[in-house]
Amino acid sequence: MQEGNLANALGVVKRNIPRADKAAIAALARFGVATIHEAMGRVGLMKPYVRPIFAGAHVCGPAVTVLLQPGDNWMLHVAAEQIRDGDVVVAACTTDCEDGFFGELLATSYRARGARGLVIDGGVRDTKELAAMPFPVFSRAVSAKGTVKSTLGSVNIPVVCAGAVVHPGDVVVADDDGVVVVPSAAAAKTADAAEARERNEVDKRAQLAAGVLGLDMYKMREPLARAGLRYID
Amino acid sequence: MQEGNLANALGVVKRNIPRADKAAIAALARFGVATIHEAMGRVGLMKPYVRPIFAGAHVCGPAVTVLLQPGDNWMLHVAAEQIRDGDVVVAACTTDCEDGFFGELLATSYRARGARGLVIDGGVRDTKELAAMPFPVFSRAVSAKGTVKSTLGSVNIPVVCAGAVVHPGDVVVADDDGVVVVPSAAAAKTADAAEARERNEVDKRAQLAAGVLGLDMYKMREPLARAGLRYID
Amino acid sequence: MQEGNLANALGVVKRNIPRADKAAIAALARFGVATIHEAMGRVGLMKPYVRPIFAGAHVCGPAVTVLLQPGDNWMLHVAAEQIRDGDVVVAACTTDCEDGFFGELLATSYRARGARGLVIDGGVRDTKELAAMPFPVFSRAVSAKGTVKSTLGSVNIPVVCAGAVVHPGDVVVADDDGVVVVPSAAAAKTADAAEARERNEVDKRAQLAAGVLGLDMYKMREPLARAGLRYID
Amino acid sequence: MQEGNLANALGVVKRNIPRADKAAIAALARFGVATIHEAMGRVGLMKPYVRPIFAGAHVCGPAVTVLLQPGDNWMLHVAAEQIRDGDVVVAACTTDCEDGFFGELLATSYRARGARGLVIDGGVRDTKELAAMPFPVFSRAVSAKGTVKSTLGSVNIPVVCAGAVVHPGDVVVADDDGVVVVPSAAAAKTADAAEARERNEVDKRAQLAAGVLGLDMYKMREPLARAGLRYID
Amino acid sequence: MQEGNLANALGVVKRNIPRADKAAIAALARFGVATIHEAMGRVGLMKPYVRPIFAGAHVCGPAVTVLLQPGDNWMLHVAAEQIRDGDVVVAACTTDCEDGFFGELLATSYRARGARGLVIDGGVRDTKELAAMPFPVFSRAVSAKGTVKSTLGSVNIPVVCAGAVVHPGDVVVADDDGVVVVPSAAAAKTADAAEARERNEVDKRAQLAAGVLGLDMYKMREPLARAGLRYID
Amino acid sequence: MQEGNLANALGVVKRNIPRADKAAIAALARFGVATIHEAMGRVGLMKPYVRPIFAGAHVCGPAVTVLLQPGDNWMLHVAAEQIRDGDVVVAACTTDCEDGFFGELLATSYRARGARGLVIDGGVRDTKELAAMPFPVFSRAVSAKGTVKSTLGSVNIPVVCAGAVVHPGDVVVADDDGVVVVPSAAAAKTADAAEARERNEVDKRAQLAAGVLGLDMYKMREPLARAGLRYID
Repeated sequence: MQEGNLANALGVVKRNIPRADKAAIAALARFGVATIHEAMGRVGLMKPYVRPIFAGAHVCGPAVTVLLQPGDNWMLHVAAEQIRDGDVVVAACTTDCEDGFFGELLATSYRARGARGLVIDGGVRDTKELAAMPFPVFSRAVSAKGTVKSTLGSVNIPVVCAGAVVHPGDVVVADDDGVVVVPSAAAAKTADAAEARERNEVDKRAQLAAGVLGLDMYKMREPLARAGLRYID
Repeated sequence: MQEGNLANALGVVKRNIPRADKAAIAALARFGVATIHEAMGRVGLMKPYVRPIFAGAHVCGPAVTVLLQPGDNWMLHVAAEQIRDGDVVVAACTTDCEDGFFGELLATSYRARGARGLVIDGGVRDTKELAAMPFPVFSRAVSAKGTVKSTLGSVNIPVVCAGAVVHPGDVVVADDDGVVVVPSAAAAKTADAAEARERNEVDKRAQLAAGVLGLDMYKMREPLARAGLRYID
Repeated sequence: MQEGNLANALGVVKRNIPRADKAAIAALARFGVATIHEAMGRVGLMKPYVRPIFAGAHVCGPAVTVLLQPGDNWMLHVAAEQIRDGDVVVAACTTDCEDGFFGELLATSYRARGARGLVIDGGVRDTKELAAMPFPVFSRAVSAKGTVKSTLGSVNIPVVCAGAVVHPGDVVVADDDGVVVVPSAAAAKTADAAEARERNEVDKRAQLAAGVLGLDMYKMREPLARAGLRYID
Repeated sequence: MQEGNLANALGVVKRNIPRADKAAIAALARFGVATIHEAMGRVGLMKPYVRPIFAGAHVCGPAVTVLLQPGDNWMLHVAAEQIRDGDVVVAACTTDCEDGFFGELLATSYRARGARGLVIDGGVRDTKELAAMPFPVFSRAVSAKGTVKSTLGSVNIPVVCAGAVVHPGDVVVADDDGVVVVPSAAAAKTADAAEARERNEVDKRAQLAAGVLGLDMYKMREPLARAGLRYID
Repeated sequence: MQEGNLANALGVVKRNIPRADKAAIAALARFGVATIHEAMGRVGLMKPYVRPIFAGAHVCGPAVTVLLQPGDNWMLHVAAEQIRDGDVVVAACTTDCEDGFFGELLATSYRARGARGLVIDGGVRDTKELAAMPFPVFSRAVSAKGTVKSTLGSVNIPVVCAGAVVHPGDVVVADDDGVVVVPSAAAAKTADAAEARERNEVDKRAQLAAGVLGLDMYKMREPLARAGLRYID
Repeated sequence: MQEGNLANALGVVKRNIPRADKAAIAALARFGVATIHEAMGRVGLMKPYVRPIFAGAHVCGPAVTVLLQPGDNWMLHVAAEQIRDGDVVVAACTTDCEDGFFGELLATSYRARGARGLVIDGGVRDTKELAAMPFPVFSRAVSAKGTVKSTLGSVNIPVVCAGAVVHPGDVVVADDDGVVVVPSAAAAKTADAAEARERNEVDKRAQLAAGVLGLDMYKMREPLARAGLRYID
């Protein structure tokens, strides 16, 4: 079956999903979102309206994906059963909706099942309790508004969450800078590229801290002149 | 006079308003906004764009309502005289406006009059000073832009604030999750329902923390199957 | 050359800009944005969507201005060379764009050059690192998305940043309430007006804290009556 | 029962609602929304994001109110039975949602029941067909996305639609300028005020067309001078 | 190569893409977006902010996909070469950008190559000329702002456009109600389902036009009662 | 007096403003906004949220500028006296406000004074009447909400309108693609550049219509290859 067909199909729960390699996930967990996004070739980022509900959280793990209906969190309950230790739940919605789909009770359940956090293109509530646990949540909004449990979505199908495609098992990394999705097959090499990038930055940082200009360090003066930049006094 | 007529009338200050019962307010003050919203039957919530200017504030009290004109905070001064100990001022505006209608001086006055906090569908300023007092404010925006004092609005008429109807004297509860309005006559029974709900959650929380699935605890498997949910491997 | 012509011209770096008087800048640095905005006659404010990436920062200094292209931070590197000790970099963009134009490496360079902070009508990243330095940034968004270095903008031309005109050398003041721009020639008198305003507020604050109403202190009762305000019971 | 309690209650259909006086409705139908809003004392207007799906429509009639759940149009079907000839259906939603709640089939039914149009704080679809009928619709969005029929809202309770309180039976007037709500009891006098206003404008228009300045016609020069306006050359 | 890896890769042009079956495309072309969205099982819709630049356009064809960089339309020129008769170009962007990526000259080229229209998650310009041709465009914005040609995106890779995944060759249908994406493999059966749905609606429409209520036609009264709906007088 | 000081000063009307050269204005009037924006070097454009209230309007003339206060249109009346035949009124506001500042009566007055149209970073009303006159208006919103006349703004000072700096007398050109501002001193050469651009496009259009690719016509293949574009099959 073509993947394009499966995407967004309603009423389906996929139980056995291939998760990204554990070592690769562990390797990726050492880097921030901005670094991984660069290491990916500047792709895979969610839109910046998804923000952490408390500062300083950093989660990295394979995605259990959820497709929600507006005002309905039934599938978040269905998803709980599919969580394995270390997973990050990624919840998209069939339409823009800022209702409070998730709160402290579900977080208690998710944590008991081993979830590391939640990324949701919707709203959440009980933010004080979530911060106290702490259970990291990256969401579009905070809203006390509750939801019903009456219409089917899906679990573990490819979803579009905040503009990024997420396949079940992809590595999801989230921190104060945003959320990035690393396809399973690219996890190891992305971690390598991230490490190379960070190593490379150590020297750059030292030079910049010493007052060297990026203009010189990155050899920009010649291309700037070629592009026509004029200095005036 | 039909209430619909009074709503939003300009140039009026109502002095004697019936405030919700003190015991009911005290009872409601023990619960968060999400719990009260559920206990109300999922109504009465303001839109989620109203956010606290500092985390952790929790206010609960009878509403003194204000209808502002855009860029004009005259009525916030008029309202000060109507504040009694324990009140929460709720300010709507005749049009969307993010100017800084309220700052530290007004907060000093409001606190001296006994106000517990402010909910405003507009902007506020002096946020560092407000947090230091601390004077809890829930607002649509933060803006340093000042306002004039030249056009009449009203005080203690029913207003629509961030999508919720607020009658003077209604109980307003605000915390990190948002703002909910409890009509005076419903305050006591809402507090009871909130308490029942919280008691009920203690056991649920324990079960979920022990790894029991909501699917089983809430007996969702049968209705999910009836709705057509398919599990695939 | 008429200023209107220069505004927004692309591909230009002005090296020698007249900066506002140091004493005036030092004087302005003692006041908050809301006070300065009032002292200016309620003009010069950026739109309130520009927010600090961490609370409590307060910067004040002459502006080095930058005009960026969407998704391109080349000019931020060019600007580094123009920074002198105490400057605040102000970056506008030719179109709305929330990409992460600025991060920890550039901040390291800017700090080494003496910059006090950044105001940007765009996104930034590495927010945790920026807060740890700390390097104050006031931005439109947080985004991990990187940018290219391929299209010319300008440095030290007049720009419109978040709705405010900023000339190179103008004093830019930013705190939790927003960002205000004080033209160089107005810096000294604005600082004087701010000081007078703050002195004046000491007594007002004391009266309000003692329970005096603004209605009486500001003598509003008569103009309110003249405007037609009706009190009802 | 206090009205504040009833507002937004879920799961209720009120069958017999008092509708505004027919003669008053007929009188109001002769005026545009801007005129009526002025005649009302500048209150009762919905937010301007509610726009007509085709230009030139003008509807005026008593409101049948609907409270929808996000992504669910069940109550629009329930409301059909409550429509009487000349009614305008006004649909609010418990949360912001732009799904396509309404289309050509429902419009066919509504028209058969005598509805004059729909005002909805949500999305609609089949816009080409609706324009061809023509069935006037004023909505927040256009969206092809369908909705489910599974969660109860209410019919003929007071609702907040796009920021305006609407009681069942209130007169709703909508045209290219927006939507205004006239409480039943105020319908006749508002129509009179609108007529007086329009009569008054005939002479004003003639003067302005002849080149007389509003400055003189409205005698603004003296108050402008008093406010401190300075003319410079 | 896993599809997840390919998605959003930069700097790639795929020349030979499998396009959906011509007969299936022709069959789908007879239906509107709302009908096809329903026939798809309510998936595949772009967000409703993508709107036609002139009313009444209806396009249906296989997608040539483009991934743009903000403020840069280079890839729209690269895409022109890949267009075959009947294609619809679908352009996503790596970040939100409303610049005018497309205008009359490109439309002239696209039309000469056989393109039926453009769907773009960005801005366009020369709207008067595009309407006069007419060349149907569905866009996020209208903007006169031009773009550069300096940074690589891709052509004919899977993209996320306005929230919907589009694979090259998928059928894209757009009209006044929005834009829907039908995966190639689902095109024929979706057309069949759309036809069945339309046939089914003929009888429903007649009944509704005759005054039959949806409540009865869809047999909703019993489930409404079971859900607890109360009628009051 | 430094221009930076004057900008946004409140309470000032400048009577004698130098207007751009008539011949240059006439020359510019022959071109659309997108062409002029390119001819200007891609600067001077207002943000794309300013849209025409009816399609097909095209205005070009020297600007009479207005700075409004939120919810207050007093200065639009003051501005009427400053209008000369052929002028375009450009109204900014000290804060974001979508109220209906302008309607048919003011338009009658403005037309009588010789105004060619209005560009306003705010709302307008009486849109049907304005279209019937026709009086071209480019606005941020349509709103029936009226405004007061009580707080001073200014007339004929430099303003920032929808992100663009406008000096009194600058040439403002507006059509379906947006609004562009041409500084007086640049008017003649911009018209020349626009003409050259249009002449140049005639041949390009013919080539593109004949099926020549932009890739070849603009000689993009080599730079694309150098940038690393890969073609795959």
